[in-house]
Amino acid sequence: MADAKHTPTIAFAMGDASGIGSELMAKVLADADIAAAARYIVIGDSRVLARGASIVGLPVTLPVVGPDATLPRDRSVFVDLGHLDPKDAPFGTVNLASGRFALENFRTALLLGLAGEADAVAFTPFNKAAMRLAHPPYEDEIGFTAGVLGFDGKAKEFNILEGLWNARVTSHVPLKDVAALITPDEIIDNLVLTADALRTSGIASPRIAVAGLNPHAGDGGNFGREEIDVIGPAVETAKSRGIACDGPFPADTVFLRAQRGDFDAVLTMYHDQGQIAMKLIGFDRGVTMLGGFPFPICTPAHGTAHDIAGTGKANTGATRAALLLAARMAAAAPRVRPPAPLSVSAVRAPRKAA
Amino acid sequence: MADAKHTPTIAFAMGDASGIGSELMAKVLADADIAAAARYIVIGDSRVLARGASIVGLPVTLPVVGPDATLPRDRSVFVDLGHLDPKDAPFGTVNLASGRFALENFRTALLLGLAGEADAVAFTPFNKAAMRLAHPPYEDEIGFTAGVLGFDGKAKEFNILEGLWNARVTSHVPLKDVAALITPDEIIDNLVLTADALRTSGIASPRIAVAGLNPHAGDGGNFGREEIDVIGPAVETAKSRGIACDGPFPADTVFLRAQRGDFDAVLTMYHDQGQIAMKLIGFDRGVTMLGGFPFPICTPAHGTAHDIAGTGKANTGATRAALLLAARMAAAAPRVRPPAPLSVSAVRAPRKAA
Repeated sequence: MADAKHTPTIAFAMGDASGIGSELMAKVLADADIAAAARYIVIGDSRVLARGASIVGLPVTLPVVGPDATLPRDRSVFVDLGHLDPKDAPFGTVNLASGRFALENFRTALLLGLAGEADAVAFTPFNKAAMRLAHPPYEDEIGFTAGVLGFDGKAKEFNILEGLWNARVTSHVPLKDVAALITPDEIIDNLVLTADALRTSGIASPRIAVAGLNPHAGDGGNFGREEIDVIGPAVETAKSRGIACDGPFPADTVFLRAQRGDFDAVLTMYHDQGQIAMKLIGFDRGVTMLGGFPFPICTPAHGTAHDIAGTGKANTGATRAALLLAARMAAAAPRVRPPAPLSVSAVRAPRKAA
Repeated sequence: MADAKHTPTIAFAMGDASGIGSELMAKVLADADIAAAARYIVIGDSRVLARGASIVGLPVTLPVVGPDATLPRDRSVFVDLGHLDPKDAPFGTVNLASGRFALENFRTALLLGLAGEADAVAFTPFNKAAMRLAHPPYEDEIGFTAGVLGFDGKAKEFNILEGLWNARVTSHVPLKDVAALITPDEIIDNLVLTADALRTSGIASPRIAVAGLNPHAGDGGNFGREEIDVIGPAVETAKSRGIACDGPFPADTVFLRAQRGDFDAVLTMYHDQGQIAMKLIGFDRGVTMLGGFPFPICTPAHGTAHDIAGTGKANTGATRAALLLAARMAAAAPRVRPPAPLSVSAVRAPRKAA
């Protein structure tokens, strides 16, 4: 990581301005481990960061440039978009200005990745309600990212806590529709994506557990047949393609096994199967990673914590973990830089229609 | 509990003979708190108990009587059915003899409850595979108990860990069928049963959380409508009948709230929704209680632990908790004793057809 030639670049977007994001950012930018792990192109408004920095009592030492400045490739910078006066973003509130701010910073960071100026993207927490005020069709980060990148491949959200990864085959769908959406292809695609993400993160030989769908993983077909007809065969196919996976395992014990180190990741069949477990284990201390896009996108799993925003109490553990994961994955799969350094304005300019 | 007049009687059946049950039983029978909490009619074979007692290095001090002896009502006894030589039940194996032994002890204990000679039933762990060898149609404890008692009302399994109760609307059914089985009547019946069980256990004003079915409890109808159409209205109806319940809450955070003390119980919609959480919290240290029958039936939640059977290492925490819960519930709702004390043989005799 210390080798300048291989130091990855992270486009680090300020998230919602009314939550704990600016305090988190001021703290991590002053953190020596974080500074050593990557070069940062921080996107936001310097007044918003200054407010956070003054609350936590830390100086901002990053050089500030405007959106038209050519981005230096040898040091971190703060790109000031000058688009939010902090007095328009009171702490602890859901508001349009904070949503617009987060959305524009994130979009800019994604475009830096797309252009090759950054190898990974990270951001401080978003507030979904504020995002929807700013952009009513906003569904989630995956949909927004796919739109900005013009990406139509497979992308997935991973939840990561202290070395334990969780991916899921289905997510925001009614429970009654889950069984019909579980297909061999979906399971295999997810296993490939999970194995790739784990390897890029530095786990050379990832071991993946696959959860069953039904109670007791179907109990030999007594409580459902998806394990026998769909999940089991998909696991065998994935194994034959060299993925170290196993299962299906009963969902109510698979996380106990993963927690004690039997597996690096658990692939779950539906949203709550993984989320119940990960939240109890302490996922809010963990990281959300969007995988499958041309570059990794990492953020702390917790939210904007309106109840403590502006108090300086915010804990940086998850934000540090998100940046360190982004740096590790970016170093393993760097982007190809454009021949000459660009400015933020250049990457934000609408591209010509194909 | 110390008042002899109100000391409850627990029919305590030896479970599988090839697991840790006889060691657990020898330990808890020598435990002063357990001895003070209830009078016990222990059902089994004295040779099997003696083997467990010698492993843990404790004497068996309980008077031993045969099945034809009239049961004393003022002291604990061991009823020796003389039906299993321990050499036919090797430790750490699934075998027919151990299954038959557990099944017959349990049946006898249930009949003592039915006759009014016991106020509650408890048992050391069963091994389901051995139960099925002994009785192929064996499904679970609820079905077997209903059969022995000729009971056709509603009965439910509760999981209890350190004051946190979990009940579920559906259990051993395929996940794809769950949504259709979630009806207002089922939810309300479960809430009534849960509130009753909690009150009988000594919680005067139980607070029950109801989990949603879909991710984010449906997110206002975006990911499923059962919360709006079924669960929410059922909760309101139950409230109007005086049950202190609330919900539906997102399943991935409701246990975090219950764990920090916001609720005494969580009613979940399907098997793994509760089991994933309870097992991570440490449910194997907890108790399974069958509620809704004319008397409570309690057992440790863990299994026969074949890997440590015969070593003396078995931890009695869950067995103690099961007996103390049975004693508390039995004291609150004692059975009406028959006019004259009966023998085990008398309660086991086939009853005349109605």
